[in-house]
Amino acid sequence: MSTPAAGRRGRATLSEVATLASVSIATVSKVLNGRSGVSEETRSRVEAVLNDRNYNRRATAQSTAPLVEVLCFEIDSPFGAAAIAGIERVTREQGIGMVVNGTLDSHQPHPSWIEGVVRRQPAGVILVAAQLSEKVRTRLRSHNIPVVMIDPYGAPSTDAPSVGSADWNGGYLATSHLIELGHSRVAIITGPDDMLASTARLSGYRAALDAAGIPIRREWVKPGKFHHDDGYEQGLALLSGDDRPTAIFASSDIQALGVYDAARALGLDIPRDLSVVGYDDLAIAKWAGPAMTTVHVPLAEMAEQAMQLVTRLHDEPELAYRRVDMATTLVARDSTAAPGA
Amino acid sequence: MSTPAAGRRGRATLSEVATLASVSIATVSKVLNGRSGVSEETRSRVEAVLNDRNYNRRATAQSTAPLVEVLCFEIDSPFGAAAIAGIERVTREQGIGMVVNGTLDSHQPHPSWIEGVVRRQPAGVILVAAQLSEKVRTRLRSHNIPVVMIDPYGAPSTDAPSVGSADWNGGYLATSHLIELGHSRVAIITGPDDMLASTARLSGYRAALDAAGIPIRREWVKPGKFHHDDGYEQGLALLSGDDRPTAIFASSDIQALGVYDAARALGLDIPRDLSVVGYDDLAIAKWAGPAMTTVHVPLAEMAEQAMQLVTRLHDEPELAYRRVDMATTLVARDSTAAPGA
Repeated sequence: MSTPAAGRRGRATLSEVATLASVSIATVSKVLNGRSGVSEETRSRVEAVLNDRNYNRRATAQSTAPLVEVLCFEIDSPFGAAAIAGIERVTREQGIGMVVNGTLDSHQPHPSWIEGVVRRQPAGVILVAAQLSEKVRTRLRSHNIPVVMIDPYGAPSTDAPSVGSADWNGGYLATSHLIELGHSRVAIITGPDDMLASTARLSGYRAALDAAGIPIRREWVKPGKFHHDDGYEQGLALLSGDDRPTAIFASSDIQALGVYDAARALGLDIPRDLSVVGYDDLAIAKWAGPAMTTVHVPLAEMAEQAMQLVTRLHDEPELAYRRVDMATTLVARDSTAAPGA
Repeated sequence: MSTPAAGRRGRATLSEVATLASVSIATVSKVLNGRSGVSEETRSRVEAVLNDRNYNRRATAQSTAPLVEVLCFEIDSPFGAAAIAGIERVTREQGIGMVVNGTLDSHQPHPSWIEGVVRRQPAGVILVAAQLSEKVRTRLRSHNIPVVMIDPYGAPSTDAPSVGSADWNGGYLATSHLIELGHSRVAIITGPDDMLASTARLSGYRAALDAAGIPIRREWVKPGKFHHDDGYEQGLALLSGDDRPTAIFASSDIQALGVYDAARALGLDIPRDLSVVGYDDLAIAKWAGPAMTTVHVPLAEMAEQAMQLVTRLHDEPELAYRRVDMATTLVARDSTAAPGA
């Protein structure tokens, strides 16, 4: 952000920025509005000054037609759709337009995304399971566009406020539920190990088993990526032998549906032969056969929190960054029962 | 649109509109930009003149940061999410921002929606299973904002171009598939009867049975609303007696999942005791247990067509309105088999 020597010297005017960057006021204006006709080198120099001097943007078109940008991983997944719907409800009440973009497979936006954002001058950006490079973050900062993350995967950046849910508690709740039903043979299929949410859920699983004095079997901790395919494949691997678990905690509802398929392929009945707990509580969980016991992630409340943070950060860019975790709860349905019940 | 006497006299300038509406140029500008400070009566008068004289809006902010508005029924439903994802892919390629709004339960937007749209000045509006009142349509026309509908439910408005899919063919394909497998006891659960898509699918069902010389049993045509609940309830009603169908064609994948639940509740195996065909081919269809045979609705292609239409209509507002139907196809999976197989 600021170079150490520069510090914060109050907010600069347009003409001060132009002088500091050795360009015309028109050029600063072009950079601010994301217009073409400015070389990459000049744009970087102007943005560095904007960043450094915390330029105080005047009200522009966006104050009469305010926008918020949502960058979402897998927008047509049940998780992405639920998060977008949660944000939409809040923006609708506030009279704000919600611009939605999907990410590429890498959780990063398309390279041209930042150009559109700078032109649209939104009040803020909300990331849903999406990631931004430091270069893109710097550009957003230089345009005074705050970024808030929902449920970040991977270690949250220290300079981006985020809204998460209590992942460790969720993992603990799911596993404790199975133990209370009488299961001691409980396996887990995890999410990607570079996502903090996965690690926290796994850690909650371990803690619940520890608390019950049940040893953890390494071969029953299977890696996954929240996807249907890994639920199916790891489900088959876990359930194929005689020495199999009586319960599986999957780290997403979609992954749990993959476990359902694996059980069906092996002729195992849920919940008689196998209890399954999912994670997320998407609409598909209650439609699954049997209706799925799962951990409820309060996406609607998380979206509301994220929007509140964006609004506050837009008004007070100096607001201390922070993290909020919303509580998770267990929703018991028909996919869990006592072992052999 | 135009009053008969007025006709088309070429496009008016801002000052001509002001003179005709007996207001200042500043007032016309406020109306064009959706700003406050104009009475409802004055706004209506100015918009009537804009409509009548086909005012030629100059390039504004939106030409450098173009937007398209998507108004979608049930944005967190699998269908809504798939449509939004299809539109997003096209807008991303074209460097256009996609603003997403959900509808109220009535398929209509929130009353304040139109104010936001007028302020944002999008290149166009795409409706996904959503409806607009004539009053709202008139306001959009007066601001030169074209409207395109995706898969309209109910009779398509004669003055709104729309992109649909071949619903009659879909119903015919689904039913023919069951007949070819050897079923003659084929029931249907329909969508809402005020939606043209439902009527066309039902009509395709009837035509396929007729073509095979199979009489239609009225008690096997059950009304539904594309929802899980009606799939479950009508499924139970159809399957509870001894004189039950061996196959059910559900008018949506979600509804078909409700039929799955009904079959499970009655101890019937799919496909051994009952074949089920869904409609839409959402991601959840292939994850269902068993993987669902369904009619594929080409949402990605429909979204692309809708965006092309919006772009063309924005450039050529006089373009003759038209309807495009994209082909549906049958995707055979594991929920259908010969009766008693």
